[in-house]
Amino acid sequence: MTLSMKEAHQIKVAPDVEGLLPAIRERWSPRSFTERAVSTAQLAALFEAARWAPSSSNEQPWRYILGLNGSATHEKIAETLVGFNRHWALKAPLLVLGTARTLGGKRNAPNAYAMYDLGAATALLVVEAQALGLATHQMGGFDHDAVRKALEIPEEYAIGSVIALGYQAEPAELPNETLIARETEPRSRKPLNEIVYSAWDVPAELG
Amino acid sequence: MTLSMKEAHQIKVAPDVEGLLPAIRERWSPRSFTERAVSTAQLAALFEAARWAPSSSNEQPWRYILGLNGSATHEKIAETLVGFNRHWALKAPLLVLGTARTLGGKRNAPNAYAMYDLGAATALLVVEAQALGLATHQMGGFDHDAVRKALEIPEEYAIGSVIALGYQAEPAELPNETLIARETEPRSRKPLNEIVYSAWDVPAELG
Repeated sequence: MTLSMKEAHQIKVAPDVEGLLPAIRERWSPRSFTERAVSTAQLAALFEAARWAPSSSNEQPWRYILGLNGSATHEKIAETLVGFNRHWALKAPLLVLGTARTLGGKRNAPNAYAMYDLGAATALLVVEAQALGLATHQMGGFDHDAVRKALEIPEEYAIGSVIALGYQAEPAELPNETLIARETEPRSRKPLNEIVYSAWDVPAELG
Repeated sequence: MTLSMKEAHQIKVAPDVEGLLPAIRERWSPRSFTERAVSTAQLAALFEAARWAPSSSNEQPWRYILGLNGSATHEKIAETLVGFNRHWALKAPLLVLGTARTLGGKRNAPNAYAMYDLGAATALLVVEAQALGLATHQMGGFDHDAVRKALEIPEEYAIGSVIALGYQAEPAELPNETLIARETEPRSRKPLNEIVYSAWDVPAELG
């Protein structure tokens, strides 16, 4: 029997560590979306969150291309997705492509933090989405060259992720058993002592 | 006359857009830190936030090196900072270096999303810090080769930012007028229509 959205949530939510922000704790990346549209006010809040992200020398390299379901942009992004992602992501009311300007400063020099800063801004966007009751799922599984060509993205902009965004639907609405199983299985993360060191390879003591 | 921390906050806080998460709205990057230590429980919450970030193929490439003020690691990181950053960052109770594993998957292939994912995890960390009443300031201004050597970071890990972290102090406690002026001047960001497009170079209508 397939678990409900609420039951899946209980499995997916991160541990209740004291002080952990609910929007960070409760965010995960579902694949089952309803067709319900996201409002313009919600979109404004989402990109406002991204806009205020920190960036190296305040370059703000992030540029997002917003594909509303039914638009040519949504269709162009959707066409570049790998098969596995196409099975679920086409239904999402929004497909957003994140890109980052790789040159910056007065001398138009390479910006080594372009992708780092795009990742940061997009992280704020997905946390903000969670706070608004929306779900997001970022994908790297798409044809990067094809999306660049289809959307006419200049070479100096690096391609980031495609973000599927909208209201979450029941796991049972996904089109196949593999996707339903993923939607309800536990998440995994490395323990803290594998990601925080007090010196290289020496785990920090975080209790 | 120098503005107080509270007055600076009113200048720095992002506009009150409906639904914008307070921890995102109120986060900015001060340079004036007190010497007050961050607790182990707070550190655990900070890195828990980073730990649950999404990543490409769930590779979780982020590895953080935690330098508590007074430790050899803090000193080693501090020594690599450019002069401008050294003037203020040495006082911070924590200097954290973020790094990202650039190889991943079963075949140990290059991970194009390593820096992107490190940026994302670090963004969650700094938002969580804000939620805990802590301040953060990320820097790219340090000698990347020197920090790699000093901390013996393997070549397959890319260097991200150094995060100064702790409790914020009054702007007037900064060591010079330039730093005090920066601490109290308005922030700037590109307008939404320069970062969100419905097609390349066509601003999306976000009201």
